[in-house]
Amino acid sequence: MTSSFHPPQRTLMGPGPSDVNPRILEAMARPTIGHLDPLFVQMMDEMKSLLQYAFQTKNELTIPVSAPGSAGMETCFVNLVEAGDTVIICQNGVFGGRMKENVERCGAIAIMVEDEWGKACDPAKLEAALKAHPEATTVAFVHAETSTGATTDVKAMCDLAHAHDCLTIVDAVTSLGGTELRVDAWGIDAIYSGTQKCLSCTPGLSPVSFSPASVERIQNRKTKVQSWFLDLNLVMGYWGKGAKRAYHHTAPINSLYALHESLVLLQNEGLENAWARHAKNHNALKAGLEALGLSFIVDEAVRLPQLNSVTIPEGVDDAQVRGILLNDYNLEIGGGLGVMAGKVWRIGLMGYASRQDNVLKCVSALGEVLGRVGANVDTKKAMAATIAAYGE
Amino acid sequence: MTSSFHPPQRTLMGPGPSDVNPRILEAMARPTIGHLDPLFVQMMDEMKSLLQYAFQTKNELTIPVSAPGSAGMETCFVNLVEAGDTVIICQNGVFGGRMKENVERCGAIAIMVEDEWGKACDPAKLEAALKAHPEATTVAFVHAETSTGATTDVKAMCDLAHAHDCLTIVDAVTSLGGTELRVDAWGIDAIYSGTQKCLSCTPGLSPVSFSPASVERIQNRKTKVQSWFLDLNLVMGYWGKGAKRAYHHTAPINSLYALHESLVLLQNEGLENAWARHAKNHNALKAGLEALGLSFIVDEAVRLPQLNSVTIPEGVDDAQVRGILLNDYNLEIGGGLGVMAGKVWRIGLMGYASRQDNVLKCVSALGEVLGRVGANVDTKKAMAATIAAYGE
Repeated sequence: MTSSFHPPQRTLMGPGPSDVNPRILEAMARPTIGHLDPLFVQMMDEMKSLLQYAFQTKNELTIPVSAPGSAGMETCFVNLVEAGDTVIICQNGVFGGRMKENVERCGAIAIMVEDEWGKACDPAKLEAALKAHPEATTVAFVHAETSTGATTDVKAMCDLAHAHDCLTIVDAVTSLGGTELRVDAWGIDAIYSGTQKCLSCTPGLSPVSFSPASVERIQNRKTKVQSWFLDLNLVMGYWGKGAKRAYHHTAPINSLYALHESLVLLQNEGLENAWARHAKNHNALKAGLEALGLSFIVDEAVRLPQLNSVTIPEGVDDAQVRGILLNDYNLEIGGGLGVMAGKVWRIGLMGYASRQDNVLKCVSALGEVLGRVGANVDTKKAMAATIAAYGE
Repeated sequence: MTSSFHPPQRTLMGPGPSDVNPRILEAMARPTIGHLDPLFVQMMDEMKSLLQYAFQTKNELTIPVSAPGSAGMETCFVNLVEAGDTVIICQNGVFGGRMKENVERCGAIAIMVEDEWGKACDPAKLEAALKAHPEATTVAFVHAETSTGATTDVKAMCDLAHAHDCLTIVDAVTSLGGTELRVDAWGIDAIYSGTQKCLSCTPGLSPVSFSPASVERIQNRKTKVQSWFLDLNLVMGYWGKGAKRAYHHTAPINSLYALHESLVLLQNEGLENAWARHAKNHNALKAGLEALGLSFIVDEAVRLPQLNSVTIPEGVDDAQVRGILLNDYNLEIGGGLGVMAGKVWRIGLMGYASRQDNVLKCVSALGEVLGRVGANVDTKKAMAATIAAYGE
């Protein structure tokens, strides 16, 4: 007979899921009610307003997709792209590659604009691609690359796209709630995020938002959206205005309770305060990691505070160190993705995980373990640097 | 400022979500750990075994899709069907219609075999369609129609499909855990279900299982699966054998804790005992409802114990009665879907909701409310009939 599963209490400082606020876990366990219950429909309306605040948008179509961030990505592409369309994708990490997969599975043509992993996407390259491909209808890129920790200037990219009559799809999985993001002011037409990063919520849902221009394109498609589950023309019937909601699929009720609670927490803290908290804890972690001799792979100017990618010191075994951190400290940090596997660690400071006690735990644990496996580190100095950074 | 959402404690006797066992809600609130954590990977292996038990299958590819039942349906179609294929769909309710949408969005041809809503799918009609369409590759139908409460003879249908070299896709959203279902013995090639019905779990995941013949077809597709998120060739890398798992998408960790707990509960009760419990509570509810003068729309021979569709008495307002039940009794029952809207009630006795106290509450509340709105009912007699049925 299989027994109940009782997970340990980890400290989650990888690329996500991040530490979940206990208030959110408690909310998730509240009694399940029906997906057409009038009280649930009220909660859905609150959720839309809270998401509009988090995204800084007035977009009416601002909802959580009932599946993880990858499904949010797919929602954007399958609704906005039709077979034969041309989509320009600016890639500077793993997730731009996933965008290409999405575009091609829509039967559309992906024009790839490549930047080095760890760098921002270069608006000049985008402009050249837009000039070379006047047939393009859409530009897609990642705001905050989870595989490297680099951010891209969204407004500059969107301005260029609009000057060439393209709509924009932006991946904000790792940025929402952790770093500045302004959907309306920056001109984002379609955006998707995840709940398990800077919203400190459990994984499984994908907040999305669509501009009026996007909605118009979706409503005027020549062909049906290839996914029935993700077809926003149908989903809007359930998440739309008014008390009358058309059944589409059964909403993930308890996961939505959790997201609602996490957005209430964000509203209470204030978006700008949350961004400032992420920056402050990043500065302290940076001081500690650099004092341990680790170097960041992303230039400071485009570095995300919530995702810290540092190179693994020569001679140090990636899996061994992460294994010790997990087993001895219950501390999870992330390994590298794709070409960076084995070469970098990704240390997340996302949402509820972005706390002083986590930063101190991470620097001291990493220092001790690096020393244990033979690296030449001065943990005492690193801790002093970390603490000093908080005093600045 | 928006406040936390505190839902009421409802009794969920609609078509799902059904009452969630408090043990499952508690499991859902356990600490979140990483989706590549070795302890989580162990839990995933247990989950697969538990699902194999629930489905009565040895299929290696038996996993939960990270999204609701509709996404489970789409997983089956987008993986097994390619553009230009011919799929025979036997429809006897709403969900057969959704299958048609799925097939057509794959660029394939749907041959519809219609049966009256509330009846079982007729194997003779399927046989005629198979003879008329030797080009068909796949047969799809619903085991337990959630829109009506009718069941279909799965084994007879699968035998015919196999005799004509077709694979079978079966919707078991409402049957899994509530009524007899034997994936291997009945010859089902692809099956999807939901967590929010007879598994008494929260909504949001879709258990699926694929036979070796299905897996072979998926691995030998001519074209890529049109959905990246639901592409089983990729999903298998994460849910596959061994300790090494390839990151595909971030799994909905806490929702998986809940499903694991619900499957542990099912294993502890025993599958046959769960089926017997559903049958027993149905018999008592039936006695009470019939004594209230309500009649079932599905013949007893093909009636599901977990979904009781009864006609609304003449002159009684559907929305008014369901509104009073919800507001005064915190009791949710379901209305009709599609052509049955306003004409029937769907009373669920699924999973944890299938209990004697719920049956007694439902008969007594429905009797009182029907009397209140002017119907001629004898609640005392109905209660006596219900209690007598438990004594049989």
